[in-house]
Amino acid sequence: MIDQLMQGDRKTIARAISQVENDTPLSKEILKSVYGCTGRAYRVGITGPPGAGKSTLTNKLARVYRLQQKKVGIIAVDPTSPFTGGALLGDRVRMSEVELDEGVFIRSMASRGSLGGLSKRAKEAADVLDAAGYDVVILETVGVGQSELDIASAADTTIVVLVPESGDGIQAMKAGLMEIADFFVLNKADRPGADQAVMSLKMILGFRAHTMESWMPEVLKTQACEGKGTEEVAELIQKHRSFLETTGMLERNRKLRLERRIREIIEDQLHIDFWSSERSRELHQRLDLLLQRQSNPYDVAAGLLEDFRTSGGQQ
Amino acid sequence: MIDQLMQGDRKTIARAISQVENDTPLSKEILKSVYGCTGRAYRVGITGPPGAGKSTLTNKLARVYRLQQKKVGIIAVDPTSPFTGGALLGDRVRMSEVELDEGVFIRSMASRGSLGGLSKRAKEAADVLDAAGYDVVILETVGVGQSELDIASAADTTIVVLVPESGDGIQAMKAGLMEIADFFVLNKADRPGADQAVMSLKMILGFRAHTMESWMPEVLKTQACEGKGTEEVAELIQKHRSFLETTGMLERNRKLRLERRIREIIEDQLHIDFWSSERSRELHQRLDLLLQRQSNPYDVAAGLLEDFRTSGGQQ
Repeated sequence: MIDQLMQGDRKTIARAISQVENDTPLSKEILKSVYGCTGRAYRVGITGPPGAGKSTLTNKLARVYRLQQKKVGIIAVDPTSPFTGGALLGDRVRMSEVELDEGVFIRSMASRGSLGGLSKRAKEAADVLDAAGYDVVILETVGVGQSELDIASAADTTIVVLVPESGDGIQAMKAGLMEIADFFVLNKADRPGADQAVMSLKMILGFRAHTMESWMPEVLKTQACEGKGTEEVAELIQKHRSFLETTGMLERNRKLRLERRIREIIEDQLHIDFWSSERSRELHQRLDLLLQRQSNPYDVAAGLLEDFRTSGGQQ
Repeated sequence: MIDQLMQGDRKTIARAISQVENDTPLSKEILKSVYGCTGRAYRVGITGPPGAGKSTLTNKLARVYRLQQKKVGIIAVDPTSPFTGGALLGDRVRMSEVELDEGVFIRSMASRGSLGGLSKRAKEAADVLDAAGYDVVILETVGVGQSELDIASAADTTIVVLVPESGDGIQAMKAGLMEIADFFVLNKADRPGADQAVMSLKMILGFRAHTMESWMPEVLKTQACEGKGTEEVAELIQKHRSFLETTGMLERNRKLRLERRIREIIEDQLHIDFWSSERSRELHQRLDLLLQRQSNPYDVAAGLLEDFRTSGGQQ
């Protein structure tokens, strides 16, 4: 299976990502095996508010790369609301011209309730595409919560897509979108207010100039539906890539992200090890005492932690 | 100190919250001691996008409660952007009429880099005010990320404040705001588009009706600046409280939140126990091997976890 994956067999890739998506025992073996072949793909994160045109931009960008003979993998993450269960996925309809291209692999991932896990699985799916020989892997996600930001910032270059109606940027700033952007795309730039939006974005960029070393984030205008400006987006990604490579930041950033991933894997496993059914039961028994104020949360936590230690950090 | 706290001494309360805010060793002792006296205050969470008028509504609501002879504690959480460091706090300016009232205690808390910790500390500060005899504790926070949602949903009644310009509600829905609202307040309801916004919110509420048992969330219109509608907000909070008490859901919800808090305390401590300086150093050494693809993240994580177990779950 790994051999076929490395040779880029689409069915095998799809099966491997399904294993990853369902977090099966086999998925860990797959990910261990492919890891040695990762690191060749350039990862691009695309995020922004709902309706900004992220999917359209992603598709147009994929076409630009195809003209450069590059293979493109796309992970489109849909963190749907738990109670609508996917009813809002209408905008996820893909353009068939890209989907029918053998050099493009598109996979949508939905949250199924656990956003934290989704972030981990999206990065792992990107590993699979990386190992399978895709030159560029695009991680596209709605930028509304921490986990989605995590996904987008797991890329080498992160693009935040906004529209003139996205407000004065302050809201985006508070939502954490501004911090993760290597550059901005103002899409639907033919709409009223576009120039004003670009100006206020540039003003905000002034605030954070000092955090970015010598890279100065820019604001590009696009009309992704008509393909206007998408080549410029690809060029700016290339410019950012060259900057990262020249300064040694590409490797430094990847090292930091790798560290974060290992910490995530460990925290997940600690959680599983700690919350044995016995310890969960114990917690529930003590909750009643707590509600009667006969103990306090800190002593209950300390008791359970002590039990974990005497069990040698085991279930 | 605890005695003075219980008697409602304002200086002692302020000092205790400072301890909690800085997560000092003394804070844990304070929180253990006060826990037995918590559970009497009714907690109200107020959240929504920036600029929706949350602070104003909170202040007007405090005045309504003051007229009912109730003491009101307010925890206003400002999850500021890490790189602006509080420059956007202009809207946090409070109305002096409330601030000068001895029956109202207001405390602003900022993120200082760690949002997760902020959520924990805000709940703990609410415990302090609860034990100090405040009848109502309002947790007010900007609803833009998971941690802020956590804070708002740590309340008995959670109110989401929107304005006519907040869009068609779909965006709020995706951001997780819709799930946590016990009811909605459409503030600045004199602005154009108010009735349409109320209608689309009601439509969205239809989707989730089944998740709420017999409580049907409503949409209230306010003009908080003029105080219009704020008494109705207080009445609806009371109606929701009665509903929770009658159905036994108040205790059930509090038990669930208590469970979540203990889990948080444990995860925090596990994190501290695991990441000794030695294990952090070990991780960094292995990162270089990883970048050369001579290992994989899963084996590195497994190695560190094994070391943790053989150390008996200790540093």
